[in-house]
Amino acid sequence: MYPKKLMAMLAVIFLTALSLSAQEKRYVMVLHGGAGTILKQNMTPEREEAYTGAMKEALLAGYKLIKEGKSSLDAVEAAIWVLEDNPLFNASKGAVFTHDGRNELDASIMYGKTLEAGAVAGVTTIKHPISGARAVMEKSEHVMMVGAGAELFAKEVGLEIVDPSYFYTQPRYDALQRAIKQDSIKAVLDHDAKQSNRVPFQNRDDKFGTVGCVALDQEGHLAAGTSTGGMTNKKYGRVGDSPIIGAGTYCDDRTVGVSCTGWGEFFIRSVVAKSVSDLMEYKGLGVEEASRLMIEKIGQLGGDGGLVALDRNGQIAMPFNTAGMYRAAITEDGEVEVAIYK
Amino acid sequence: MYPKKLMAMLAVIFLTALSLSAQEKRYVMVLHGGAGTILKQNMTPEREEAYTGAMKEALLAGYKLIKEGKSSLDAVEAAIWVLEDNPLFNASKGAVFTHDGRNELDASIMYGKTLEAGAVAGVTTIKHPISGARAVMEKSEHVMMVGAGAELFAKEVGLEIVDPSYFYTQPRYDALQRAIKQDSIKAVLDHDAKQSNRVPFQNRDDKFGTVGCVALDQEGHLAAGTSTGGMTNKKYGRVGDSPIIGAGTYCDDRTVGVSCTGWGEFFIRSVVAKSVSDLMEYKGLGVEEASRLMIEKIGQLGGDGGLVALDRNGQIAMPFNTAGMYRAAITEDGEVEVAIYK
Repeated sequence: MYPKKLMAMLAVIFLTALSLSAQEKRYVMVLHGGAGTILKQNMTPEREEAYTGAMKEALLAGYKLIKEGKSSLDAVEAAIWVLEDNPLFNASKGAVFTHDGRNELDASIMYGKTLEAGAVAGVTTIKHPISGARAVMEKSEHVMMVGAGAELFAKEVGLEIVDPSYFYTQPRYDALQRAIKQDSIKAVLDHDAKQSNRVPFQNRDDKFGTVGCVALDQEGHLAAGTSTGGMTNKKYGRVGDSPIIGAGTYCDDRTVGVSCTGWGEFFIRSVVAKSVSDLMEYKGLGVEEASRLMIEKIGQLGGDGGLVALDRNGQIAMPFNTAGMYRAAITEDGEVEVAIYK
Repeated sequence: MYPKKLMAMLAVIFLTALSLSAQEKRYVMVLHGGAGTILKQNMTPEREEAYTGAMKEALLAGYKLIKEGKSSLDAVEAAIWVLEDNPLFNASKGAVFTHDGRNELDASIMYGKTLEAGAVAGVTTIKHPISGARAVMEKSEHVMMVGAGAELFAKEVGLEIVDPSYFYTQPRYDALQRAIKQDSIKAVLDHDAKQSNRVPFQNRDDKFGTVGCVALDQEGHLAAGTSTGGMTNKKYGRVGDSPIIGAGTYCDDRTVGVSCTGWGEFFIRSVVAKSVSDLMEYKGLGVEEASRLMIEKIGQLGGDGGLVALDRNGQIAMPFNTAGMYRAAITEDGEVEVAIYK
């Protein structure tokens, strides 16, 4: 009897250890390229490959720096440059257009070691908005700068400035024209005076495509960053969650780094990124459960989107309540995982 | 022996009950008019009376609405109008000047019943920025609007629009001239190239004077709002914590409403208002301890300021780590408490 029981116990211990070691794969970077109605039936193999390839390229750009002993801030910035430069994503080159036909960019970054943070919003000439955010963090005493003032600052500290036409891409411009057309149809159909001032969302996915990244460097410091072109056809100087520290981005070495994507208004109201950290710090939850709870809360309020999170121990979470989210992660051994659909 | 012991026990119970009932005075509103180096020796009796009178007037404006059964949102808006209209405070009329000689105003508001929120930043023509924030919350699908877009929206929904010269006050303009002069002296003295891009704070108190309020209505719903003119001599489109949901303002009926004032950058990095709520919700702390811990955290990071908080049970906290904070509260019975110094 006893040896059999012992064998069973040993088997349980062995299997538990196996599953723990599987869980405890140590990641050093995680990123997203936006969440939304991303369905396999609407995707061509070429397009899928383009997204997958871009995410891998971004991960490897950051991973290389981490392996060289560079900081997580450097890794986040390098990874986001790759996504900003790629017109597939709604950030920098490839950003969506505002109602007035402009590309207004938002970004934020935070460093878990010092709790320093930086953000820019509504900028139209900074080639890499994530670097604008980093410059605000490192070269000013401020955390957030908006509009022309932020652009002036970026120029003064030597960041690459481009003509606003740099951000133009035909598909995004066409999307604006469709949105404006739908908007005018909606305005004609809208007989409810009380509602007529409500800014409508023409297309639920017009607000998606933000990019973001979290990295953990060899010294154990976390950094998180987010960059976006905002929402197609946006009006009235609308700002979403991406440049808001606590909402779209948060990072603390004692807990976790988080970058969000989705319907920004809901992420601001729930202060999602900081809440993930607080659920871990104050309630003792793991990164997986804390992240899942916050995406559930967004859903309960009527919003959608997702987030990527990387904790101090190299554990990740990538929950979302949309059909898909472009997402990828890399372990400390260089193993890459990429996914798009549910 | 026994009767004596019994008497002693009864006395303890009686005293405990007394102290509990003192603690459990139920407040319906709390407000602040900014924190900073406010020292009694620098204050005239007239000036002290002016501040005290303004805070009482603001409290009573909101209290009247609550007694009539109006919502906490109405009460917060009414109280903040009084402070915005009064040039003593750094909000609307009496706002400080940016480096370019403009008055750029920020405000936010949040409703604990629905977790809806609204904010405006960098606006120069909306007479009552707190109402701009409320309009964003109630009449748009957005949470945050900035600059000219926010002004256009406010005009379209019928808010009172004024010429930017409305916000001009001579003392604030003189303060800008002093700050610019100190700035140029500092620039000459500053030989540290690495630091020369850092935007200096000329005067630690140039950033203070924000106003804010939290109210609890008869239906048990909380609302919180904050309004500010920002920082004297601010450059580069700097935005502080006041219009940032989670940082300067947060409100949830399940926990607490919070409005912050002080060195905004530190309040953004620590996401102070939401953290007070999270310490209560996730860690089970009371409003007093949660609020105190967050102001201590701000101090540890090197920042200063204060906050007012009113929880779902009518309990308040008004911690600050500056020399003083203009603050006031009113109980459900109409008892007013006003304080300025430590």
